[in-house]
Amino acid sequence: MINLIEQQVDKQPILQQVSKLKDFLLNHVNQKVVFLTSGGTSVPLEQNTVRSIENFSSGLRGAASAEYFLREGFVVIYYYRDKCLRPFARHLNVQKLINADQEELEKLKQLQQVDRTKLYEVSYVSVMEYLYFVIKAMEIFKELKLNILVYLASAVSDYYIPKNMMAQHKIQAQDKLELELMPVPKILGLIREIYQEAIIISFKLETDDDILYKKIQESMKKYNLEYCIGNLLQNRRDQIVIYNKGEFVKMERNKDEIEEQIIEYFKQNIK
Amino acid sequence: MINLIEQQVDKQPILQQVSKLKDFLLNHVNQKVVFLTSGGTSVPLEQNTVRSIENFSSGLRGAASAEYFLREGFVVIYYYRDKCLRPFARHLNVQKLINADQEELEKLKQLQQVDRTKLYEVSYVSVMEYLYFVIKAMEIFKELKLNILVYLASAVSDYYIPKNMMAQHKIQAQDKLELELMPVPKILGLIREIYQEAIIISFKLETDDDILYKKIQESMKKYNLEYCIGNLLQNRRDQIVIYNKGEFVKMERNKDEIEEQIIEYFKQNIK
Repeated sequence: MINLIEQQVDKQPILQQVSKLKDFLLNHVNQKVVFLTSGGTSVPLEQNTVRSIENFSSGLRGAASAEYFLREGFVVIYYYRDKCLRPFARHLNVQKLINADQEELEKLKQLQQVDRTKLYEVSYVSVMEYLYFVIKAMEIFKELKLNILVYLASAVSDYYIPKNMMAQHKIQAQDKLELELMPVPKILGLIREIYQEAIIISFKLETDDDILYKKIQESMKKYNLEYCIGNLLQNRRDQIVIYNKGEFVKMERNKDEIEEQIIEYFKQNIK
Repeated sequence: MINLIEQQVDKQPILQQVSKLKDFLLNHVNQKVVFLTSGGTSVPLEQNTVRSIENFSSGLRGAASAEYFLREGFVVIYYYRDKCLRPFARHLNVQKLINADQEELEKLKQLQQVDRTKLYEVSYVSVMEYLYFVIKAMEIFKELKLNILVYLASAVSDYYIPKNMMAQHKIQAQDKLELELMPVPKILGLIREIYQEAIIISFKLETDDDILYKKIQESMKKYNLEYCIGNLLQNRRDQIVIYNKGEFVKMERNKDEIEEQIIEYFKQNIK
């Protein structure tokens, strides 16, 4: 499976990213670390990519969660989709800043005071790039025997087009377009294989309530997960459900952001 | 054709946008106006959209061109893909701002001084939303007898999934995914039908040089266009070609941004 992923990516730049991450971690030994993925992955339809299939995610859940983990003293590795929201920066509205909105300028000043030394950010675009980095990062976490929390808030594509089936150039106009996509290897299985001891918090987004609960239970069982957070696209900012040890804990937003409550839950439950 | 597009969109919010645009234009009569589209369009794969096919475009060409048109005294209607680059704001790096980078803070101060009263911005997401707004806006331009320049820098999707063929909920995992997409109505033909007198500057992006020239000539002929700007994905920031009256004018970047040269060309050529 890792072989198949390797064949789809340009390995060198990713291995360099992983090596830099290792250096960062060596400077933060004996600290609580969370590896947090955020934003949707991209599936290119052409080798010279003009078109891609995207999974919807603004990166808000990931970026907000990162801030609350930092507040709880965690070292946060924020692995995010390029151009998605990032911790702290997400609060700024550039349009308001150039309109010299006083409230926004005040916010900027406050954000400049935030200590971000425990935050490490690195970005991805394609789903295969995402998978390969996660695999290699997990190998590093294992090597360093990190007591790591893996918080998978990314919206990962389920299907992709293998390189050898992909058009080299922009697909030309025709009567209709037929695409055939293959299933993406499941990252949860790969993480489990590499680093048994990692505590995994996985996410499941659906649009249909009936399907959500079933999918969570299947996934928990299949990958022997500790926690799974389920949400519906329609009300994901207000309601989530956390599944742990056969029980569903429902959570409704009672603070500014539900991510604050999620991280409080894990603070209580994971020692 | 317009019927077909109407069936794919929620008309009311778009008609409201168009009505606001008309109010803006009535406050800017007897001025040179450019209608500038920017950024890639989105093709949803599900009605409760988790996945979409996207056309790559950062919006840089459109946003940069808008600034140079404004400098030349044009009123600019900037119709952009939500989250893509926008005129002036594009120059700011939020990460640098929260790092209190002095150069970036200085840039922000300068941008706050820019007069943006002649800039009107309105955004889209899906390709059908894009098409419907462009059609309705062209009807307004015709009604107001505007001497309008239509500068189509958007990367418009060629294929879409009609609503009646679209899954309602998130597509569930299966062995492989097969998608069938239908061709998107050609906006150039629609614009020509609605407002004969509009001067159209269209864009053609390809990844293969051999195809580019052929496609430009075909498109010019088919839609009776005045100008077409061709570019290759690979070097689009440095080289373009402008096709007008059977002649190709090649342009290489010799300023900070090639968009500055493009707008100078049109200043010379369109009276």
